[in-house]
Amino acid sequence: MTQAVANRPMTELAEKIRAGSQPAIARGLTVVERRSAAASELLADLWKHSGHAHVLGVTGPAGSGKSTLVTRMAKGCTARGSKVAIIAVDPSSAYSGGAILGDRIRMTELAEDREIYIRSMASRGATGGLSRAVLDGISLLDAAGFDVIILETVGVGQAEMDVMSVAHTVLVVSVPGLGDDIQAIKAGLIEIADIHVVNKADRPGADLTYKQLRESLRLAHREAGSWNVPIVKCVAATGEGVAELLDKSEKHQRWMKDHGGLREVERRNAATRIRWAAEVLISEQLRAGDAGFDSAVNSLIAREIDPRTAADHLLRAMTRPHTDQKEKTDA
Amino acid sequence: MTQAVANRPMTELAEKIRAGSQPAIARGLTVVERRSAAASELLADLWKHSGHAHVLGVTGPAGSGKSTLVTRMAKGCTARGSKVAIIAVDPSSAYSGGAILGDRIRMTELAEDREIYIRSMASRGATGGLSRAVLDGISLLDAAGFDVIILETVGVGQAEMDVMSVAHTVLVVSVPGLGDDIQAIKAGLIEIADIHVVNKADRPGADLTYKQLRESLRLAHREAGSWNVPIVKCVAATGEGVAELLDKSEKHQRWMKDHGGLREVERRNAATRIRWAAEVLISEQLRAGDAGFDSAVNSLIAREIDPRTAADHLLRAMTRPHTDQKEKTDA
Repeated sequence: MTQAVANRPMTELAEKIRAGSQPAIARGLTVVERRSAAASELLADLWKHSGHAHVLGVTGPAGSGKSTLVTRMAKGCTARGSKVAIIAVDPSSAYSGGAILGDRIRMTELAEDREIYIRSMASRGATGGLSRAVLDGISLLDAAGFDVIILETVGVGQAEMDVMSVAHTVLVVSVPGLGDDIQAIKAGLIEIADIHVVNKADRPGADLTYKQLRESLRLAHREAGSWNVPIVKCVAATGEGVAELLDKSEKHQRWMKDHGGLREVERRNAATRIRWAAEVLISEQLRAGDAGFDSAVNSLIAREIDPRTAADHLLRAMTRPHTDQKEKTDA
Repeated sequence: MTQAVANRPMTELAEKIRAGSQPAIARGLTVVERRSAAASELLADLWKHSGHAHVLGVTGPAGSGKSTLVTRMAKGCTARGSKVAIIAVDPSSAYSGGAILGDRIRMTELAEDREIYIRSMASRGATGGLSRAVLDGISLLDAAGFDVIILETVGVGQAEMDVMSVAHTVLVVSVPGLGDDIQAIKAGLIEIADIHVVNKADRPGADLTYKQLRESLRLAHREAGSWNVPIVKCVAATGEGVAELLDKSEKHQRWMKDHGGLREVERRNAATRIRWAAEVLISEQLRAGDAGFDSAVNSLIAREIDPRTAADHLLRAMTRPHTDQKEKTDA
């Protein structure tokens, strides 16, 4: 098994990231995006220094003005004294490139604002790879000292839902006039919202959208003592309503802290991380070239053993060189 | 860790399956489709009795007449003295139900033919679940004594490609007139074909389809001594060309045996099975309620440990109650 403590080429990078170096942060995010063994090492170095940031998830359909809203929110948080990072999750950029162009424009706009770091993360590789990269990216930015991390996704697909599950506060953005019904309801986003935002609230139909949201919240099953989901009207283009949104977001964060919600998110997040790390460790061992694995493959082909028993033996064998057990046996 | 040898409720079912009972086979396939712990136990019982069947993969675009062709092939194999089973892989049936209706019609047609067993398998649950169910289904039918197992898929998507990777012989079906170009080329199926079939070869354009396939095979990189991919013209509706197809398929099987190809497929298959079994064993342990796991989650939240180290410790701890090691320590 890979040694948990050893000399790591990633340690130096981790130190620079913790010091807040932007080139180091950018390089680190590329490392986690590539899902190599280095990503696992880097995260091991950074994990202990994370756990301080407030993670805000912002989701909603395309055309709801999420990017403008997120930019405004980031600037608002900065004005309140927070260091802010934005991760724009883009599962489709490999094909369209659209979001990346949008982010370039935003990056130029935010370039003067040295407190705000922005990065878009796209899927490169296997199923589930994006969610893992984004979660590691959050830990990295957290360890780099950002107080608020805003996760921006288009609310469709399992990867985006997985990503949203690690946010402490989830904002779901609706806009008037995108269709007969509220898009958030259609997209199944209504249940995950901690705060609803009606953006472009100066447009005709904003009141109807507001009422439809209020009605669907009224009908939703809500346990006694649970968070009372507010609906906030905004015009992201002018900044109207953004201060109220940040107030509600801070209020939700306090509520989560007081009612054990933060702990619950952390627990879920930690459980997921351990499972993923175990999968990586296992797959590092169970591959061609490893003597034990190759021998198990041969036994399986010869029908001397079944897959489950072979896996069981391999998992046990993986622990043999462990010093603790060796010492115990020697004594 | 789950005991590899214990009294299993699946053992009786496994015995009935090995005896060739059709109700037992049907029940067993439902068990593997549901991906429960029972599936893992059942496979453990059946694995040692598998490894004899010739697995034929048949893929091609919708409308290429695969189902009719597969039915003809199955009857042809039966006439040659083989026991045949068909698995129709249907990743979309949860939505359309179309393939299932088609299979009902075929099932009625094949009902008199007691030698041919047919079953469609659909996706129920997580990503990758279908591929796993199909592979286990092949092992089950193999252990039940079928000599030939025909896997029928629509050649799109990762699941179908995963499934095809376990076939000993892959047939890719094209038809004239479905478009300007050969659909197999578009769908990226040209490289996986061991035999190309031009079905509906009595239609106009069949010669053109044949020539396009021949040309693309001529241009494809081919290592010296590798299998010379034939192109067979068929009219599945009348049975024309099916005997030649079965001859080529048998020839390919012999070639694979003589040139180490069968062994290579078995090796890949065995490696995949061990990895999947390991994942199941790990996920059985790493879940809330397990004292070690819950404690690791708490340490992770407290930032006392990073995910990789926590996973490493848990994987080691999983082996402690193993009797072999205990005996060693006691002695």
